[in-house]
Amino acid sequence: MLKKIDHIGIATKSIAEALPFYTKSLNLECTHTEEVASEKVNTAFLPLGEVNIELLEGTDPESPITKYVEKRGEGIHHICYQVDDINATLAQMKEQGIKLINEEPKRGAHNKLVAFVHPKSTGGILIELSQDAGDH
Amino acid sequence: MLKKIDHIGIATKSIAEALPFYTKSLNLECTHTEEVASEKVNTAFLPLGEVNIELLEGTDPESPITKYVEKRGEGIHHICYQVDDINATLAQMKEQGIKLINEEPKRGAHNKLVAFVHPKSTGGILIELSQDAGDH
Repeated sequence: MLKKIDHIGIATKSIAEALPFYTKSLNLECTHTEEVASEKVNTAFLPLGEVNIELLEGTDPESPITKYVEKRGEGIHHICYQVDDINATLAQMKEQGIKLINEEPKRGAHNKLVAFVHPKSTGGILIELSQDAGDH
Repeated sequence: MLKKIDHIGIATKSIAEALPFYTKSLNLECTHTEEVASEKVNTAFLPLGEVNIELLEGTDPESPITKYVEKRGEGIHHICYQVDDINATLAQMKEQGIKLINEEPKRGAHNKLVAFVHPKSTGGILIELSQDAGDH
């Protein structure tokens, strides 16, 4: 069961360079920064209503974000949907033949359980599913 | 002043082909469809919390969506932020040197006042600003 859009992940060359548009032109506030070592990224979160803007920058040439920016340029990288039971959602999608990048959830930012769905099955969009730490 | 993310615009080749992932795998419901003749697009809205997913398909080879899909493939096309005073937001951005696609708001889906901000000033993302019909 989907609860809401948790965040929109935005690939940047540099969070420091991307931030002023969000803080000065959109008047959002950065409330949380975190390195997610397993993904080789730094993250910065800017909440707006029930959604967060998540700015991402690679910390390594092999980071998926560094590679994305090299190939496609800066821009929207993924949409993350919050679900109440990530294992149930993954099982349902698998049954429907949806191509999953992660068949089992792993730990993401904020210690949430996360899994990615392949753009081939979603109309070209990298989709993250996420379950709050409090929900498991 | 930003109120929330109003919708995420998703470029598709065909709304009919894109819809099953959203309705059957994400279990969202399409509550509104509308042709926006000025933009040469059909739209389908699927609400989730305070945000809508807006599926878009071109109705003409010259549609910006048809051209986008030809050039970049299907995927996320824009993020729309709801503001309470679109003219004030546009004036502030202009003063800050932000590149605007529309310096004056025009009518979009749901008869809202909308204006687009150029990806050159936003880190590669096409941003729409929108003011509810009830707010003006």
